Amino acid sequence: MKAFNDLADFSSDEIAALLELALRLEQHPEPEALRGKVLSLLFLSPSLRTLASFQAAMTRLGGGSFVISPEMSIHGIETRPGIVMDGAAAEHIREAVPVIASYGDAIGIRAFAQRQNLEFDMAETEFTALTDLIHTPYINMESAMNHPCQSLADWKTMDDLGMPATGGKFVLSWAYHPRALPLAVPASTLHMAAKRGMDVTVLRPEGFELPDAIMQKARAAADESGGSIVESEDRVEAMEGAHVIYAKSWSSTKHYGDKLSDQKLREELLDWCVDEPWFDNARDDCRFMHCLPVRRGVVVSERVLDGPRSIVIAEARNRMFAQMAVLHQMLGTQS
Amino acid sequence: MKAFNDLADFSSDEIAALLELALRLEQHPEPEALRGKVLSLLFLSPSLRTLASFQAAMTRLGGGSFVISPEMSIHGIETRPGIVMDGAAAEHIREAVPVIASYGDAIGIRAFAQRQNLEFDMAETEFTALTDLIHTPYINMESAMNHPCQSLADWKTMDDLGMPATGGKFVLSWAYHPRALPLAVPASTLHMAAKRGMDVTVLRPEGFELPDAIMQKARAAADESGGSIVESEDRVEAMEGAHVIYAKSWSSTKHYGDKLSDQKLREELLDWCVDEPWFDNARDDCRFMHCLPVRRGVVVSERVLDGPRSIVIAEARNRMFAQMAVLHQMLGTQS
Amino acid sequence: MKAFNDLADFSSDEIAALLELALRLEQHPEPEALRGKVLSLLFLSPSLRTLASFQAAMTRLGGGSFVISPEMSIHGIETRPGIVMDGAAAEHIREAVPVIASYGDAIGIRAFAQRQNLEFDMAETEFTALTDLIHTPYINMESAMNHPCQSLADWKTMDDLGMPATGGKFVLSWAYHPRALPLAVPASTLHMAAKRGMDVTVLRPEGFELPDAIMQKARAAADESGGSIVESEDRVEAMEGAHVIYAKSWSSTKHYGDKLSDQKLREELLDWCVDEPWFDNARDDCRFMHCLPVRRGVVVSERVLDGPRSIVIAEARNRMFAQMAVLHQMLGTQS
Repeated sequence: MKAFNDLADFSSDEIAALLELALRLEQHPEPEALRGKVLSLLFLSPSLRTLASFQAAMTRLGGGSFVISPEMSIHGIETRPGIVMDGAAAEHIREAVPVIASYGDAIGIRAFAQRQNLEFDMAETEFTALTDLIHTPYINMESAMNHPCQSLADWKTMDDLGMPATGGKFVLSWAYHPRALPLAVPASTLHMAAKRGMDVTVLRPEGFELPDAIMQKARAAADESGGSIVESEDRVEAMEGAHVIYAKSWSSTKHYGDKLSDQKLREELLDWCVDEPWFDNARDDCRFMHCLPVRRGVVVSERVLDGPRSIVIAEARNRMFAQMAVLHQMLGTQS
Repeated sequence: MKAFNDLADFSSDEIAALLELALRLEQHPEPEALRGKVLSLLFLSPSLRTLASFQAAMTRLGGGSFVISPEMSIHGIETRPGIVMDGAAAEHIREAVPVIASYGDAIGIRAFAQRQNLEFDMAETEFTALTDLIHTPYINMESAMNHPCQSLADWKTMDDLGMPATGGKFVLSWAYHPRALPLAVPASTLHMAAKRGMDVTVLRPEGFELPDAIMQKARAAADESGGSIVESEDRVEAMEGAHVIYAKSWSSTKHYGDKLSDQKLREELLDWCVDEPWFDNARDDCRFMHCLPVRRGVVVSERVLDGPRSIVIAEARNRMFAQMAVLHQMLGTQS
Repeated sequence: MKAFNDLADFSSDEIAALLELALRLEQHPEPEALRGKVLSLLFLSPSLRTLASFQAAMTRLGGGSFVISPEMSIHGIETRPGIVMDGAAAEHIREAVPVIASYGDAIGIRAFAQRQNLEFDMAETEFTALTDLIHTPYINMESAMNHPCQSLADWKTMDDLGMPATGGKFVLSWAYHPRALPLAVPASTLHMAAKRGMDVTVLRPEGFELPDAIMQKARAAADESGGSIVESEDRVEAMEGAHVIYAKSWSSTKHYGDKLSDQKLREELLDWCVDEPWFDNARDDCRFMHCLPVRRGVVVSERVLDGPRSIVIAEARNRMFAQMAVLHQMLGTQS
């Protein structure tokens, strides 16, 4: 495996193999699998779960990792092309990234969306500029529009619970949050649920529609898997018979990059906090998912988050096993 | 071993076994013992020795670790229960701690005393709130009133030097320091020396008496081990025939949480700096112990700290071996 | 090997053996070589390549490392001798360094030049004060006047490319940079090229002559190896027939520690930016070397840095293999 960048790059069989491997590694540790192998971890955006779970994953497979993160931005890293570096920055990303990559057998890279221009972010301009600099295998640890490790972990979490693929109803719901957050998780989650063959409803208020290209990509996945995708602003309709609601806040796409307009739209939507009444017409065992971090009492009520519906800790733990499977395929001797 | 939280939770035989294991691992490395095992290290308070020695310990046993520390407080972590998270913090400890724990086979947690309310700290309110969130084995890396890793290391350090248990005279002395420090080390040290069977004198000025519950716990340990405990404000009396003085500053318990009153009391006590004359009527080979970090010329004179009495570096080094023993028992296949 | 502090401490045969080992470890991994061994990494100055490459090196050899860096300067570390520590700093280097060293089988230390007094820096006063505190083997990760890991990696990089030793022309050139940088890399590089037997030209403007002691040390190495050393301010003369130009900015030695005078001298020298015309009379395949980080458009033009002459990424990658060789000799069972 040369890159783990997008679940869309993998066939259903390939994903099934990754999930099977993840489960096997969870049940049967292989502390010799990646002896002496090194994973470089480059965070241009902050991290908690990804930072910890990748380090743990490499250790469990017998290898190791090192972390370069923005807190360490020692020299100040310049990213603009063609610049005369006579300011504060003493190092350019064009050297820093290949060097960091050169110490590892693979590199994980995180670079969040800039959230100024939708086309720029949709094109993965920044992330691609980074991966173009390297020749080692790489893992997308969250880019502007993708978070494949989260999605693979979420898929495994639903499998672990025996949640149906075909015929399973998956509600991806926008939720209130005081800030305009990236689209990576909703885009990635939508595609994942569609690719898993589920009947997906995207529940979101006006002005928060997901971009056409994201919807198209997910529809293509649904067409292939036998799943389906609908959009709704109607909470009751959306939750009808749902197996799971996956809550996530994201930026207004209507006002992408325009913080004031986004804020104005958003501040009317404080009631988009997932709470027990949302589940009134869902299945009794309807689950609550979220990628974390989550704001209690804002995105979701405490009683839902702390109650039996919530599987957020299992999702987070599965990050480790999903990533172990990816690393095993990418760096193992059979790869 | 499900938890290493307090030496008081272990019988003398169990501690003897840990110390024997620590010595064995010092002399005979076992780099395969914890192959592929992961220790999560969660620091809610700063660290140098603990941070380094736990990482080194896991490596020496063939496993690994990852660190989450306050410098990384990426999203800002909320700790208050029942709060609506519409402020700066984007993550609650109720998710963060279980997730971090879920990536490890065990977790080490450090959370210093809040030093506002003595009952709150004595009850280990904060630390217990954290450990209540997890199901994996855990290690207390210093809580409000305990520092069992330091105490186990200190015990080993005295053993290594052949310092007598029964009949050994141990002086735990308050020392001057410009700030009101936690009670964790004096409380833990007092109990350790008592449990080791030593004759312990707590030497401290008025207003710095250790809380009743701490004294009671240590007296119970002394009763069982054949040791004894007395308190004194008289340096000459206390040091008479001492085998070792363990210096440590701590908050005024009379004015706990009241910085101004503590400061006023404290600023009269600048002469509580351990120096050579303190040892005039001690044993010739009386040792000086301190958990570090220590302020030179404030807590202890340079000539004592740099002289042959000082065993502070050995104490620090033994942190690693003591913790290797704990980790080996907690995570090894025979556990 | 008790210390890796200076290439001058090693015979040519010893260096050849290190380089051979580095190549072997690059081609044939030995993930069992340093099982359970620990490298302490103490950074008193910032780092990117060194931080990452040492961690990766230990992992590849089956051991591990931990990092203490200035960002973590938790308690504030006091370095002045004989001081009463009643200020902000809660820990003295006299405890911190031995303790950090005590957790490792070896320690790497980085402490940049203070750049106030040339004699102080030339005497390696600060670095020696640190290494005097420890008993474990140590590695110089860049001191005031040395950077042996960089030099060993650079030597390997030239070997890898088949660049001639005897008869190879090596130009060490000063370059413009907005700040007065340390002399460690130019001093170390000059000596390395001389020891490799190359014909070295030190190309630098007036006021930036390297100190006599540095020149003498390099000349002694050249005498032994059959190399040669000349100095020049004439770029055309210097580059005539060159196999390689190694660019690096450094402080004015005439105005060492005097930032204003250095700045005044320096600001006339903006044209000391290595660009394609510099290579007009060099060999066609003349290479460009730099230790990184490098300022694009300031120290070197983008077309040179991104062009086929540049081998800066290979130099950085060879840091890892050079250090693996050092660690293998220092900590391996045959050591």
